[in-house]
Amino acid sequence: MSEPSFSHLDADGTARMVDVGHKPIQHRTATAGGFVKCAAATLAALRDKALPKGDVLTVARIAAIQSAKITDKLIPLCHSLPLDGVDVDFEIRNTGIAIRATARTSARTGVEMEALTAVSIAALTIYDMCKAVDKDMEIGEIRLLEKTKS
Amino acid sequence: MSEPSFSHLDADGTARMVDVGHKPIQHRTATAGGFVKCAAATLAALRDKALPKGDVLTVARIAAIQSAKITDKLIPLCHSLPLDGVDVDFEIRNTGIAIRATARTSARTGVEMEALTAVSIAALTIYDMCKAVDKDMEIGEIRLLEKTKS
Amino acid sequence: MSEPSFSHLDADGTARMVDVGHKPIQHRTATAGGFVKCAAATLAALRDKALPKGDVLTVARIAAIQSAKITDKLIPLCHSLPLDGVDVDFEIRNTGIAIRATARTSARTGVEMEALTAVSIAALTIYDMCKAVDKDMEIGEIRLLEKTKS
Amino acid sequence: MSEPSFSHLDADGTARMVDVGHKPIQHRTATAGGFVKCAAATLAALRDKALPKGDVLTVARIAAIQSAKITDKLIPLCHSLPLDGVDVDFEIRNTGIAIRATARTSARTGVEMEALTAVSIAALTIYDMCKAVDKDMEIGEIRLLEKTKS
Amino acid sequence: MSEPSFSHLDADGTARMVDVGHKPIQHRTATAGGFVKCAAATLAALRDKALPKGDVLTVARIAAIQSAKITDKLIPLCHSLPLDGVDVDFEIRNTGIAIRATARTSARTGVEMEALTAVSIAALTIYDMCKAVDKDMEIGEIRLLEKTKS
Amino acid sequence: MSEPSFSHLDADGTARMVDVGHKPIQHRTATAGGFVKCAAATLAALRDKALPKGDVLTVARIAAIQSAKITDKLIPLCHSLPLDGVDVDFEIRNTGIAIRATARTSARTGVEMEALTAVSIAALTIYDMCKAVDKDMEIGEIRLLEKTKS
Repeated sequence: MSEPSFSHLDADGTARMVDVGHKPIQHRTATAGGFVKCAAATLAALRDKALPKGDVLTVARIAAIQSAKITDKLIPLCHSLPLDGVDVDFEIRNTGIAIRATARTSARTGVEMEALTAVSIAALTIYDMCKAVDKDMEIGEIRLLEKTKS
Repeated sequence: MSEPSFSHLDADGTARMVDVGHKPIQHRTATAGGFVKCAAATLAALRDKALPKGDVLTVARIAAIQSAKITDKLIPLCHSLPLDGVDVDFEIRNTGIAIRATARTSARTGVEMEALTAVSIAALTIYDMCKAVDKDMEIGEIRLLEKTKS
Repeated sequence: MSEPSFSHLDADGTARMVDVGHKPIQHRTATAGGFVKCAAATLAALRDKALPKGDVLTVARIAAIQSAKITDKLIPLCHSLPLDGVDVDFEIRNTGIAIRATARTSARTGVEMEALTAVSIAALTIYDMCKAVDKDMEIGEIRLLEKTKS
Repeated sequence: MSEPSFSHLDADGTARMVDVGHKPIQHRTATAGGFVKCAAATLAALRDKALPKGDVLTVARIAAIQSAKITDKLIPLCHSLPLDGVDVDFEIRNTGIAIRATARTSARTGVEMEALTAVSIAALTIYDMCKAVDKDMEIGEIRLLEKTKS
Repeated sequence: MSEPSFSHLDADGTARMVDVGHKPIQHRTATAGGFVKCAAATLAALRDKALPKGDVLTVARIAAIQSAKITDKLIPLCHSLPLDGVDVDFEIRNTGIAIRATARTSARTGVEMEALTAVSIAALTIYDMCKAVDKDMEIGEIRLLEKTKS
Repeated sequence: MSEPSFSHLDADGTARMVDVGHKPIQHRTATAGGFVKCAAATLAALRDKALPKGDVLTVARIAAIQSAKITDKLIPLCHSLPLDGVDVDFEIRNTGIAIRATARTSARTGVEMEALTAVSIAALTIYDMCKAVDKDMEIGEIRLLEKTKS
């Protein structure tokens, strides 16, 4: 099996920011998912107290959107992209909270890092807001679900 | 079972930034872990090409340290903490890369969010740098491993 | 009447960041207020649709807290302060939305700019979220309400 | 009277960042105004000492321009826009300082939030630089004056 | 000799952000250089210990790329540009380390400030990482080497 | 001659943020200098047009102060420091503009990087504001002039 080539590494292994100047501007979307495993009592509390107000999830959604907009500042070799929109959705399940984020842009390169960053920061914000009552949360299943270009 | 109380929510469910002015300044540390699941070919390439140069992991480490320093900007209700130091370590295993980050401060509140943020951004940076060769990575097992106060 | 002296200006009028190194660290609070004048229809919509979810005001509250944490980046000659906490409250009145923000710190200098910045950004966020339905909003009455030191 | 619809809120009241991907790129401008009410002695001092050097207003102008460039970071649901230019003007009147800011862009969405943010941060900077001599300033009359699209 | 006119100053000397809305979008590049003068022992240590790992220079490269992306936040009257790519190279010479950075964009205005900022922050990062062993470093020769537009 | 040890590199050459938690909080200052070489016509224009308004140098001073406050975000392994004050001075000489910046803190680690960053960004800002009339400027002589601890 031949070795895959790393687009961010020069021939001598030096990190670099890939030149995308020759690529066309296209409509691009990416959807990522993730999951915050919580105790049943945390989910009950979220449902009873926080969800009627929507606050924990609203704060997480706002944090996610704001982080998507600075993905290029957080991930060193990412390009700066003008986001056309970001959606962040949550679903409370039996063992935790599922997160799903979609980022949209009209740019020369894809937006999967923006979607993945939004999911990660949403998860960290939920963790932060629930950590006083739940010491055993775990964040996982962060992955790309779909990517389009047109 | 009585419901746990959410420290970031007022009696009426309104989000707020907890007042920590009365808490003593203490030496505090937190260690968090995480894992990036990769294909065997990705790990081989990392070992053969990138690791001799250290670049992928060095870039991820720098991104992790820089994100730990802005955790309060990323997580809306986190307090600003002067970090005394941050360590980020990686271990290449059979199915992926294990990440471990320790944050240290002398402050009125804990540093688990800084450690968890460092791990999350390290994972996203690895993802970004390997995504050209590996479409099926998954980030997970992000959790607090240890917390001290003295 | 003798002329007041500007603490941010040197003898020759040059802007400078005042040295606060000799000042003691003290508990300090500041409360600021402001008002967003809106149409009655906007307030009704806020009450009926948004308020049950709390979203417009929750987003404004989060934006206010996050801006208070970066006041030193926004106002050039402000010092960096570790905020112990920030509270942001809203009251829907007949002609608009009243905003009140309190910032707390343990530092060598006061937090009125943090409280005023929180109010200003909360107002701008409300404006942004309602501007599709209300073209004549006006932000005003931004002022310091109280300041303590102990 | 039918209720206006909030473009930032989904059907169920959830905050979201509106998708602007389908909108055409157009030249857009927005002009906003504001006012900082000051004591006569403050204005005299500004005229006699600061204005010859231009410093208070130059610092306020720079702060305004820099804040316009990060409006999308300050206002959670704002889009990132590449600003073509920002003008900030001041007029010293009998009861205070009038501020006027114009933002220009070639983008898919308008720049009123950039102009309003520039005015707000200019006002806060003036407040910060004069607060040592004037405890009763008030910021107000922040509103959109004009908006164009071509 | 007639006096040159300063594009960032109005007729009355007021600072302003130049309007570039009428300029065409073009492919633009700029290359800048700089030099960090170091002691021979520092260079030897860099060669023997750090260079095999690449760490000092990799950290400097990452810092340079990240600073190029926020040039508009650092230099008050700079426009925000979407960078297509940034290259940063180092050459260890007898008396120090030569730095060379190239920035690329498709925009209405040039990228020399981005290239010069990348060089400056790379130099400061090298300084920071070597300062424990070398008290007499000096940063200089920061200048534009080449600029293209097509 | 034994090799100096790099405080930012672990035994195996890995970059790290040095732990300063055990160091005492002390009053610390650092003064750095730098120089922007300009054409005589540029200096004359600065003297005749800009200096009476102070604008070029005021903008450079503000940019310098603001960059000093984010030194930890620009230089990856720098610690976050609460600055007690920053002074930035300029002297117009025959061949260019001399810059001098002093940073002050009460912290566990020194502020030379803050002073050097302030000088570097002041120089870049002068460059940016004069580049329309002077294509051959060069920034140099950036070095630490003095450092105190008490």
